[in-house]
Amino acid sequence: MNTFGRNFRITTFGESHGAAVGVIIDGCPPGTPLAESDIQPFLDRRRPGTSPLVSARRETDTVSIVSGIFERTTTGTPIALVVKNEDEQSKDYEELRSLFRPGHADFTYLQKYGIRDHRGGGRSSGRETVGRVAAGAVAMKLLGSRGIRISGKILEVHGRSGAEGIEQEILAAKQAGDSVGGIAEITAAGCPPGLGDPVFGKLDAQIAGAMMGIGAVKGVEIGDGFSVARKSGSENNDPITRAGFTSNHAGGILGGISTGQEIVVRIAVKPTPSIAKPQRTTDIHGNDATISIRGRHDPCIVPRILPVAEAMLALVLVDCMLEQEKYCRGSSP
Amino acid sequence: MNTFGRNFRITTFGESHGAAVGVIIDGCPPGTPLAESDIQPFLDRRRPGTSPLVSARRETDTVSIVSGIFERTTTGTPIALVVKNEDEQSKDYEELRSLFRPGHADFTYLQKYGIRDHRGGGRSSGRETVGRVAAGAVAMKLLGSRGIRISGKILEVHGRSGAEGIEQEILAAKQAGDSVGGIAEITAAGCPPGLGDPVFGKLDAQIAGAMMGIGAVKGVEIGDGFSVARKSGSENNDPITRAGFTSNHAGGILGGISTGQEIVVRIAVKPTPSIAKPQRTTDIHGNDATISIRGRHDPCIVPRILPVAEAMLALVLVDCMLEQEKYCRGSSP
Amino acid sequence: MNTFGRNFRITTFGESHGAAVGVIIDGCPPGTPLAESDIQPFLDRRRPGTSPLVSARRETDTVSIVSGIFERTTTGTPIALVVKNEDEQSKDYEELRSLFRPGHADFTYLQKYGIRDHRGGGRSSGRETVGRVAAGAVAMKLLGSRGIRISGKILEVHGRSGAEGIEQEILAAKQAGDSVGGIAEITAAGCPPGLGDPVFGKLDAQIAGAMMGIGAVKGVEIGDGFSVARKSGSENNDPITRAGFTSNHAGGILGGISTGQEIVVRIAVKPTPSIAKPQRTTDIHGNDATISIRGRHDPCIVPRILPVAEAMLALVLVDCMLEQEKYCRGSSP
Amino acid sequence: MNTFGRNFRITTFGESHGAAVGVIIDGCPPGTPLAESDIQPFLDRRRPGTSPLVSARRETDTVSIVSGIFERTTTGTPIALVVKNEDEQSKDYEELRSLFRPGHADFTYLQKYGIRDHRGGGRSSGRETVGRVAAGAVAMKLLGSRGIRISGKILEVHGRSGAEGIEQEILAAKQAGDSVGGIAEITAAGCPPGLGDPVFGKLDAQIAGAMMGIGAVKGVEIGDGFSVARKSGSENNDPITRAGFTSNHAGGILGGISTGQEIVVRIAVKPTPSIAKPQRTTDIHGNDATISIRGRHDPCIVPRILPVAEAMLALVLVDCMLEQEKYCRGSSP
Repeated sequence: MNTFGRNFRITTFGESHGAAVGVIIDGCPPGTPLAESDIQPFLDRRRPGTSPLVSARRETDTVSIVSGIFERTTTGTPIALVVKNEDEQSKDYEELRSLFRPGHADFTYLQKYGIRDHRGGGRSSGRETVGRVAAGAVAMKLLGSRGIRISGKILEVHGRSGAEGIEQEILAAKQAGDSVGGIAEITAAGCPPGLGDPVFGKLDAQIAGAMMGIGAVKGVEIGDGFSVARKSGSENNDPITRAGFTSNHAGGILGGISTGQEIVVRIAVKPTPSIAKPQRTTDIHGNDATISIRGRHDPCIVPRILPVAEAMLALVLVDCMLEQEKYCRGSSP
Repeated sequence: MNTFGRNFRITTFGESHGAAVGVIIDGCPPGTPLAESDIQPFLDRRRPGTSPLVSARRETDTVSIVSGIFERTTTGTPIALVVKNEDEQSKDYEELRSLFRPGHADFTYLQKYGIRDHRGGGRSSGRETVGRVAAGAVAMKLLGSRGIRISGKILEVHGRSGAEGIEQEILAAKQAGDSVGGIAEITAAGCPPGLGDPVFGKLDAQIAGAMMGIGAVKGVEIGDGFSVARKSGSENNDPITRAGFTSNHAGGILGGISTGQEIVVRIAVKPTPSIAKPQRTTDIHGNDATISIRGRHDPCIVPRILPVAEAMLALVLVDCMLEQEKYCRGSSP
Repeated sequence: MNTFGRNFRITTFGESHGAAVGVIIDGCPPGTPLAESDIQPFLDRRRPGTSPLVSARRETDTVSIVSGIFERTTTGTPIALVVKNEDEQSKDYEELRSLFRPGHADFTYLQKYGIRDHRGGGRSSGRETVGRVAAGAVAMKLLGSRGIRISGKILEVHGRSGAEGIEQEILAAKQAGDSVGGIAEITAAGCPPGLGDPVFGKLDAQIAGAMMGIGAVKGVEIGDGFSVARKSGSENNDPITRAGFTSNHAGGILGGISTGQEIVVRIAVKPTPSIAKPQRTTDIHGNDATISIRGRHDPCIVPRILPVAEAMLALVLVDCMLEQEKYCRGSSP
Repeated sequence: MNTFGRNFRITTFGESHGAAVGVIIDGCPPGTPLAESDIQPFLDRRRPGTSPLVSARRETDTVSIVSGIFERTTTGTPIALVVKNEDEQSKDYEELRSLFRPGHADFTYLQKYGIRDHRGGGRSSGRETVGRVAAGAVAMKLLGSRGIRISGKILEVHGRSGAEGIEQEILAAKQAGDSVGGIAEITAAGCPPGLGDPVFGKLDAQIAGAMMGIGAVKGVEIGDGFSVARKSGSENNDPITRAGFTSNHAGGILGGISTGQEIVVRIAVKPTPSIAKPQRTTDIHGNDATISIRGRHDPCIVPRILPVAEAMLALVLVDCMLEQEKYCRGSSP
């Protein structure tokens, strides 16, 4: 399943070492102004090579709109967005042909498919997220026209918070040939009440699935999240007054449906599994081996996951928004 | 969307105060022995009235198989499971006709639908989970035949762990007219490697969506979960040896695909929002009010959520298992 | 797949010889008045035992609304409609345990599932259509509120047209222990332009799938249908004028999208395969045999398929209508 | 909805006058050998400019595999197939900016979307079928490995049959600035019994939807099709013997499930709506006008629809085949 969404459906395609990666957006309403310049800034934020904190791999990641646009406006037909791959240093990956990288999908991929493109992780590569970020940019354009704004920030890395502490932890890990994990928070402001469904399609269920569907994410929480486990109901319930809710422990969602307050999501991101430090592993024949992963990898993936997580939140919200707009209209006599 | 799953699809129906609740299972393979007695024990575990720790509401929750079975064997056609509602003390809910209960979906429901069945939460009531548990029982029968076993336990309540501490916290909350939250862990043993998809259908993404789709769940983590944020890659990667993985920080899933190790999931459950203590709220006309929720509510919902969470994990796994079995066959020449 | 529709989704369940048959409707907009009396007349039209032209099998087919309604109004939650089975003369079917009925699904069912409920065809029985007709009645209520009216009529039976000729052919076939086929036409008036999608979800594609999904239907045509094969473009194109289209060869659909004209569909229905005349067949062990099908069967199934075909057209149209209403809203800034 | 299929899912994209058209195939099993040379011959059959019977528009329609292949073998990841557009004579279409072409989707498109790419029909252009034919070629490779062969032929054009008669009718229509319709038959040999579902997913229902989803198709029939309406049950039922069925009136499908016999489908194709002869129409402001459609159009679209119809049948069958292989495995203990 490489498709996400019911109303604003995206299908991503492409591997890290093929000709291109991209996405087809099906269900984008007609009449929305759209140009490459609406999308490119989001891709620029996720691409590597822009700071000492991230991978030195160089990709310009220039997006082309291949279909779905007429005179710089969406027509309601599928929007194909394509980004050509560059700088494919496949030789970096040659020794990976027969070794499983710990913490990566190499082992499970081979178990699942019986065949594996060893060059850079195939579809489980972070490069697949180019399509998500491109589609998310279109989603944000639709959300923005309705006053919904999405933003994200890094809360902590390796237990340290604050810009300086975070930077120190990442550089120290890079120095040590190791990597570090962290926590990010993504919020949506301006969301109307009524988004999300009460049962399996709960807004928080959709968000949790979307976030955990990003590689390296190992935990998701909404509002007060895991800290609710230590609270009483009288502490945790958000009182309702004429002036609105007086707190937002719920993170903007009650019974799976948005309250109109800010939607608050946090994700736990594991340390990048690709590290230079030697690790124990086996080859594909089951022989014990040691692996030290060369190549230009991110010592901490949180900064580059941030635009992906924002994109996924945007995709969930635009999908729920279109669903709810249908519902509202559907109910009128 | 009241349907869950792609291959083993369940559709639940019914409200807490209607004639019945139930589920249609579509896609259960033919030839599986199945009788009411395979399902009833799971419903007995989730129903109230069985201990001082849970609601005193009395329901026998007797399941009937209405279709899909011939000579005590599944035929491949839709299996309809129905449980009649009993003991509908609607008068308990009369004052709720015009008041929003804090922490409940009352406010958001009305925003979404413009109409609301005020008696007990409608579809966002915990009673909707009867259908999930019944379907989960059928899923577990299929999983069991392949050697997969699911179990769950309460890790802590209101910050206390251990059976005695947990019981004390729940009874104290009940005494105080309040409620408490907690954390539960659900695991699956015997899972083959290869379940789950590498992109949007990651096994952990499906599990996260399934768990967060249970009312009152505010956080989900897989394996080491949020604690990965404080670790380095060299600590967090699970080494691979000829004898298998030497640790399971990943919780049995790499790149969205099962490794063959135990699958480990934890969920954070909020304190039951229905409490006797007076709370600030408004009525549906926007006037400030105070509410004290009478009726027989659970002081802690974690014990009753446990069988629901196990059922949801079973439903995800059986769906992935059928998908993977298709895939394997599909690839053979 | 026992689910039909994307926005107004119905899932039917139940076999001819189980406890009940029924349907879950998911996606019906909230706020629509609905009672059993809106549905019962449609079931009365399809049930047998009402005239010498149809099967003498007696079923009262009384519908119950089990969920989704509050104070006689839809709430937006799943609507479960259940009809109990009666008059299950299973002994009529005992000899069918080991014989394949020609023209029925007995042979293919066993090939597919490896197991078969021999009593009356299981899910391929016409009784499954009870759920479709019940759901179609709800769809028609929604369509009616928007001015869309669906109707159907028999055009010919066994090559004869006109009420008298049709009746004579059916009674003659009954007398002879045989059966006859026919053609029916179903139309929708008052449909707005713009329903349907331009590619795979063409309105006519959805209608064709819906109609051919009714047992015994072997052909579907829209507008002039098969006769277009003998025409030239200058004859077949419908001219457009200020006053609208001057003809309707297209049957109300161009490029898969409704034009606003009457939608015209015709279906070819095969002769009922259950006949008293002896036929060659084999038993399930492959031995040659002769079968003469006793029981109370319809000498012509066209009259009873008519309400089913109307229901299917209603289900397609309500689904497209909800889709289009979403789209319209979605495009507004 | 630009996606077709449940297991072997294709999503087509692109307009006739954009940069490219193409398709994403999601769900193709891993391990299948695949190269551009497997696909190109099918595109060559559907492209114009190859004979006096079809449009003189020149397109080389060269396909590129952009993703999903590693060392000339499918990997189980999405396969993106892209064909660049050439020879876009947009000036041919300039006068169509404000006129509705009779028999085309121009009018309904504008009604639906409120915006329209007037150059060549946008997504309702026949050019969209490039993606279908490319995906169908991959489907046929999978079907071929299981012994299933699909073929198609033209039965009649403008009421004439036989190669010579058909050619004469097409050339006569071309000469007259007019166009003609016809009937084609598509068959599948070697299909195992058991494909298709008994209710909404009947094999014939899926085929009917797939065929009617091709532009210009106005009728679909299976086996004896509309002629069953004039037959009796004793004539129409296919007798079963030890040696198999003795006839195939059913066209290889009973109760929505394949019998193992040849699957026989016929489609009615309307005359190409683009004709040079003057026709009455209006402009987009509602003023009466006359239109004479210049450009290089097919006087009869049946020859070019043939490979599209074969592709659609292949896509339906491969989807059912993967579904059934899942089911079979799923049922084993």
